Amino acid sequence: MKRTVYCGLVNETFLDKEVTLKGWVQKRRDLGNLIFIDLRDREGIVQLVFSQAFDEQALKIADELRSEYVIEVTGKVVNRSEDAINPKMITGKYEVEVHEIRLLNKAKTPPFYIENGISVADDLRLKYRYLDLRRPEMQQGLILRSKITQSIHRYLDENKFIDVETPYLTKSTPEGARDYLVPSRVYPGHFYALPQSPQLFKQLLMGAGFDRYYQVARCFRDEDLRGDRQPEFTQIDLETSFMTAEEIQDLTEGLLKRVMKETLDIDIELPLQRITWNESMNRFGSDKPDIRFDMELKDMADAVRDVDFKVFQNTLDNKGQVKAITVTGGADKYSRKDIDAKQDYIKRFGAKGLAWLKVTEEGFSGPVAKFFNDSVANVCEAAAAKVGDLILFVADNRDVVAASLGYLRTSIAKELDMIDENKFAFLWVVDWPLFEYSEDFHRYIAAHHPFTMPNEEDIALLDTDPHKAHAQSYDIVLNGYELGGGSIRIHQREVQEKMFKALGFTKESAEEQFGFFMDALDYGFPPHGGLAIGLDRFAMLLAKRDNIREVIAFPKNSKASEPLTNAPSPVAPKQLDELHLETTED
Amino acid sequence: MKRTVYCGLVNETFLDKEVTLKGWVQKRRDLGNLIFIDLRDREGIVQLVFSQAFDEQALKIADELRSEYVIEVTGKVVNRSEDAINPKMITGKYEVEVHEIRLLNKAKTPPFYIENGISVADDLRLKYRYLDLRRPEMQQGLILRSKITQSIHRYLDENKFIDVETPYLTKSTPEGARDYLVPSRVYPGHFYALPQSPQLFKQLLMGAGFDRYYQVARCFRDEDLRGDRQPEFTQIDLETSFMTAEEIQDLTEGLLKRVMKETLDIDIELPLQRITWNESMNRFGSDKPDIRFDMELKDMADAVRDVDFKVFQNTLDNKGQVKAITVTGGADKYSRKDIDAKQDYIKRFGAKGLAWLKVTEEGFSGPVAKFFNDSVANVCEAAAAKVGDLILFVADNRDVVAASLGYLRTSIAKELDMIDENKFAFLWVVDWPLFEYSEDFHRYIAAHHPFTMPNEEDIALLDTDPHKAHAQSYDIVLNGYELGGGSIRIHQREVQEKMFKALGFTKESAEEQFGFFMDALDYGFPPHGGLAIGLDRFAMLLAKRDNIREVIAFPKNSKASEPLTNAPSPVAPKQLDELHLETTED
Repeated sequence: MKRTVYCGLVNETFLDKEVTLKGWVQKRRDLGNLIFIDLRDREGIVQLVFSQAFDEQALKIADELRSEYVIEVTGKVVNRSEDAINPKMITGKYEVEVHEIRLLNKAKTPPFYIENGISVADDLRLKYRYLDLRRPEMQQGLILRSKITQSIHRYLDENKFIDVETPYLTKSTPEGARDYLVPSRVYPGHFYALPQSPQLFKQLLMGAGFDRYYQVARCFRDEDLRGDRQPEFTQIDLETSFMTAEEIQDLTEGLLKRVMKETLDIDIELPLQRITWNESMNRFGSDKPDIRFDMELKDMADAVRDVDFKVFQNTLDNKGQVKAITVTGGADKYSRKDIDAKQDYIKRFGAKGLAWLKVTEEGFSGPVAKFFNDSVANVCEAAAAKVGDLILFVADNRDVVAASLGYLRTSIAKELDMIDENKFAFLWVVDWPLFEYSEDFHRYIAAHHPFTMPNEEDIALLDTDPHKAHAQSYDIVLNGYELGGGSIRIHQREVQEKMFKALGFTKESAEEQFGFFMDALDYGFPPHGGLAIGLDRFAMLLAKRDNIREVIAFPKNSKASEPLTNAPSPVAPKQLDELHLETTED
Repeated sequence: MKRTVYCGLVNETFLDKEVTLKGWVQKRRDLGNLIFIDLRDREGIVQLVFSQAFDEQALKIADELRSEYVIEVTGKVVNRSEDAINPKMITGKYEVEVHEIRLLNKAKTPPFYIENGISVADDLRLKYRYLDLRRPEMQQGLILRSKITQSIHRYLDENKFIDVETPYLTKSTPEGARDYLVPSRVYPGHFYALPQSPQLFKQLLMGAGFDRYYQVARCFRDEDLRGDRQPEFTQIDLETSFMTAEEIQDLTEGLLKRVMKETLDIDIELPLQRITWNESMNRFGSDKPDIRFDMELKDMADAVRDVDFKVFQNTLDNKGQVKAITVTGGADKYSRKDIDAKQDYIKRFGAKGLAWLKVTEEGFSGPVAKFFNDSVANVCEAAAAKVGDLILFVADNRDVVAASLGYLRTSIAKELDMIDENKFAFLWVVDWPLFEYSEDFHRYIAAHHPFTMPNEEDIALLDTDPHKAHAQSYDIVLNGYELGGGSIRIHQREVQEKMFKALGFTKESAEEQFGFFMDALDYGFPPHGGLAIGLDRFAMLLAKRDNIREVIAFPKNSKASEPLTNAPSPVAPKQLDELHLETTED
């Protein structure tokens, strides 16, 4: 029999009608000659009733049903009696009087409950992922993710973007993160690499005149995993020709607005805020600020310049910064011990200490209050603090101040429940530095990637002070997460050569790795730029989950393995022979 | 300046208006104080005019333009004079009088012309793929491909399919084609495999209750390449629960109708023809028949049973077949030498000979005509032949007859131009054998894959005569190509175990490779089935190109390498060390 409707969608229009439903037994209640079954499918649950009055044989079969058995039933939709209505269920006003049932498959008892909010070890959930994914919150997360991509396909198609697939078997480029390699059988000692992103291919598509490209692209990075990293992840990847950074941002905003409307029915207001990287670091101590709450960083230099507090004096004398955040009503909420713990924490950012003042009716309190009690008005004004507030100071170089106060700002906001979890706060952070210093490599590396266009007026800096150059780049930030980023790219060979030189490439090494691309720039390459949005993170944030694994059907665990299929696994010696490989002992 | 419109879309609505255009110089004609430029972008070409009368500076710059230079121009759209109208150009009635121009980038002279129908070595086209892709036919192919996927996204979304991404780093399974392997850095001696298809994951998604899944999925096979094979290829992959084979076919037909309408504006009539595999082999000698023309295989057994021609007699006595195709009007078109060449060719299928008769006013002619001249009426009736036709006979076992006549049927249809190239003839071939004999493995293998459900009545055959079993499987065929295929899958552990046993697995080896999947079948797995369509081939056929490389942006060449980036390539020793690998000498 053909299904009439999904269980979760049984409604008034089916009242007094015959329906055929298919799904899983969620729950069985046996009242002797009356059996109730909650039948579940991807759209929800509906209550079935079995009784001798409807069908004796069906009642007998119902008696043998257990959780997760798969059945097909036919019956009549009726109203529940007034007192049996379940207002928490979407279908809670109805039930189905079953007169025909077919048992389609039996089920062993699952190792955990098929319901939301279970507390089960991650690897057990992954080993039985097909059961974990039956849980409504997991289904809803993946359905939401699918809605996001559908919305994106429609928007970009309407805006004349062409979906072009770029290769997954590509060339390894040591620049950047570690590649996953794929040995070639045909060419001994040669390897493909899985792409870290389709960056060069999408730029080549601009060189090929496609004008507007996009792709839902899988990307691969063989890095040590953190909470929200996976060996493979998905990017909404787009690129355009002949557009300015602002035009690309406008277009992206249209995309975000569309997605928010079509998935969560939320209207976001455009244009989005755009702030420079400098401003973002100054105001929020972060390049991906969460602007759902204030507590901005205040520059205290003027207010404390004349205060006889050595730490601040020395910092200011050495061209450092003294900045603060004000925790509104925080005086009561943080003990000296609490603050000491925070001080310990921010040492990882290089902070040497955390000065603090509580504002009382009588002035400041706290271990260093005495130094400031002559400047209460000034300090409070600069910090926008009032009685009952807590002011936290960090005095150090710009980077340490930003990292420390940026961290305090967000961690305190979470602790004090200052964040409206129903808010989706997007903003652009633009005009990034072109380079950043890498502690890993002990040299400047590209802040985005080596194909990012410097600001016009900074191109000359590539030869002299490259690390002072800023880029025509932009990140889109959502609720304190980097949702995506992009830039205008270099389209002229001379500039690209300067860029490689500034990154420490020799002429030869640049040629060897990227010669084919620089050659392409010689043949009429258009000005171009683009953007990539992290789909996993986007789906995670919209689904209000706290890990991207919750919106990926079959993720790897934190050790890059997959407990369901047991990937990775040893392979047959013949497979290695064919690839001209031997494994080494470690 | 922002672009007003694509060059190829300049039309009446822009007449007498200012437009800004951006694109590539296709051609320059210099008439001294008048310069004409054909400006090209992805939508087409428009003619620009430069003259002192419009702007002197612009004329000067135009004088220096060369092919493939990238420019931005602003000017007024005007009607061409009557005698200058080019009816072959979509924009041929207009030209743009340019008063402002910006040179955006220069270009070296390309190694081949940027135009359709060039005759250039494949590897040169691939090395300069970004130039090859500028050619209109290449752009149109990829744009058509994108339209196909857009259409598919919309249709499947409307039909409640959920787009779920399955992993690309999966477990290697030696069954089937050769896997591409990805060494693990974390687990020495362990490997991921790139998926040959998302088969098990999509079935697990059905186990997880998603009900309707689809994905535009990249698949990978490390096989020796043929004309229309690539190491990576793309499948429209879908799976449903609780549906019959016929329901899945109906749904797929809706998809095909939608795609044909939205991409080529062609209406196809539904339902499509559905024929069994047996019928297809009997009538067309092929499991993927091209039904754009007739020339079906005729069973000649009855008509020749009494003819004293040894070869046929012996064949029939040994339960072989005697079948023929009739080439309408073919008597004049094929000489004895032509037919001998065909006879040589079909020896590769095992045919021992090719008997033939030409039908003349006086009866049959040809080397064996004398045997048949008493049975002209019978033979002609059975072969549906008339005067002027050529009848080609093959007598052998069923497989050899089908392969030989199937080949002759299509090759002759091509030679005689019997195929309407504007026709798109879809059909279903259903009810396939469950197993086929593999010459490579010297045993029966799964005709589709080991998860295919036998026909209900054939399940018992799995224990006794597995190779006699037929499957609930179906292929969709377009113009003689296998466009896609699918089946109802096994959803019960007992049947799956029988299947593995019939395929020669021991209990242990089945458990080792597919234990996780058989475990999943224990937990309430729904009946399910699905289908996959080869997107590359679909796009190739709709674009009327003759190789899937023409509809793939960056394909590999016939040796699985990529001349543009030089993938695959050697990697740094450090990369291999990290992967616990050494390459071996060969």
